[in-house]
Amino acid sequence: CKNHKPKNDQVVFGNRGMPLEDEINLSNLFYLQNDLAVIHKKPIPIQIVQVDYPKRSAAVIKEAYFKQASTTDYNGVYHGYYLDFEAKETQSQTSFPLNNFHDHQIKHLRACTKQGGICFTIIKFVSTQELFLLPAKILYNYWDQQSTGRKSIPKNVIAENGFTIKYGFQPLIPYLEKVDLLIKQSPEKRS
Amino acid sequence: CKNHKPKNDQVVFGNRGMPLEDEINLSNLFYLQNDLAVIHKKPIPIQIVQVDYPKRSAAVIKEAYFKQASTTDYNGVYHGYYLDFEAKETQSQTSFPLNNFHDHQIKHLRACTKQGGICFTIIKFVSTQELFLLPAKILYNYWDQQSTGRKSIPKNVIAENGFTIKYGFQPLIPYLEKVDLLIKQSPEKRS
Ligand SMILES: [Mg+2]
Ligand SMILES: [Mg+2]
Repeated sequence: CKNHKPKNDQVVFGNRGMPLEDEINLSNLFYLQNDLAVIHKKPIPIQIVQVDYPKRSAAVIKEAYFKQASTTDYNGVYHGYYLDFEAKETQSQTSFPLNNFHDHQIKHLRACTKQGGICFTIIKFVSTQELFLLPAKILYNYWDQQSTGRKSIPKNVIAENGFTIKYGFQPLIPYLEKVDLLIKQSPEKRS
Repeated sequence: CKNHKPKNDQVVFGNRGMPLEDEINLSNLFYLQNDLAVIHKKPIPIQIVQVDYPKRSAAVIKEAYFKQASTTDYNGVYHGYYLDFEAKETQSQTSFPLNNFHDHQIKHLRACTKQGGICFTIIKFVSTQELFLLPAKILYNYWDQQSTGRKSIPKNVIAENGFTIKYGFQPLIPYLEKVDLLIKQSPEKRS
């Protein structure tokens, strides 16, 4: 595990400068250590071409390439529910650009929703350090109309249809509180 | 996606020679394409040290190392249930050696069980091409007694407490039929 030390003593509220994924990983570690949920970041998929096996030391990958991920960043289990989500940061001020998403990520989220998974995205507006949990169904609506309509989701739509997450201490991003609200909204899908 | 061509024309029942993971990946692809479940193999975690970015071609990883996985091989969602499992092959004839498992895998499965996930292992006895789905709770029992007791799970215990999976055509390993039976046995964990 990496040690996420703040870079200076003046740690500002919201940990300015820490990437969203690191913030979520820290939060997931807290949830895991406190038996509240088991959510992991999926490793980056790599196509390995050449590996050296030196004597008396660890195998070294000498040639490999990044592969397109076929899923999202995070999944896991919480209170018997399957959770699946993407973490996205944007520098944009007033809306979330849809080109932050890849087609395969939407396709994967849709397949998970169909199976009764709880699917969403955590969006961070970097300039204001605002965080939202946006239910995937809002994302699908905007995704499907983008060829003829808007290419981004307005921040006020995200705020009204999603859930504002306030930075906390432990966990840093208490997103499971918002997942509880999302679960209450979701139709029971088990068959 | 790799093309899993049989190596010769005499394809025997059970696809002798195909690794268990490939067999499960093919089965998961069938389940995904038919909207029956969304289960993926997790990528191998890699620590990347050096990447080259040549002009006009893809980034090349020039130095990287294998990291210890903190989870299991597979997870996903099926009928609203979170599934989590390991795939294990053994050359052993009459029992499954517990040293096929790592401590962190058992710890991860236990954490998922506690959250209401459906956890198990798919075991293949390579010499006889026999397949079993073993509920994680049987594995925990044997795991916890191994310092003073047996270091392996007898095949007859696996057959009696688990579910025999017969190779099929589509999917090749119809393990979700056995997951249905496992779900029926499992206490409802949602809170
Ligand atoms: Mg992301
Ligand atoms: Mg395995």
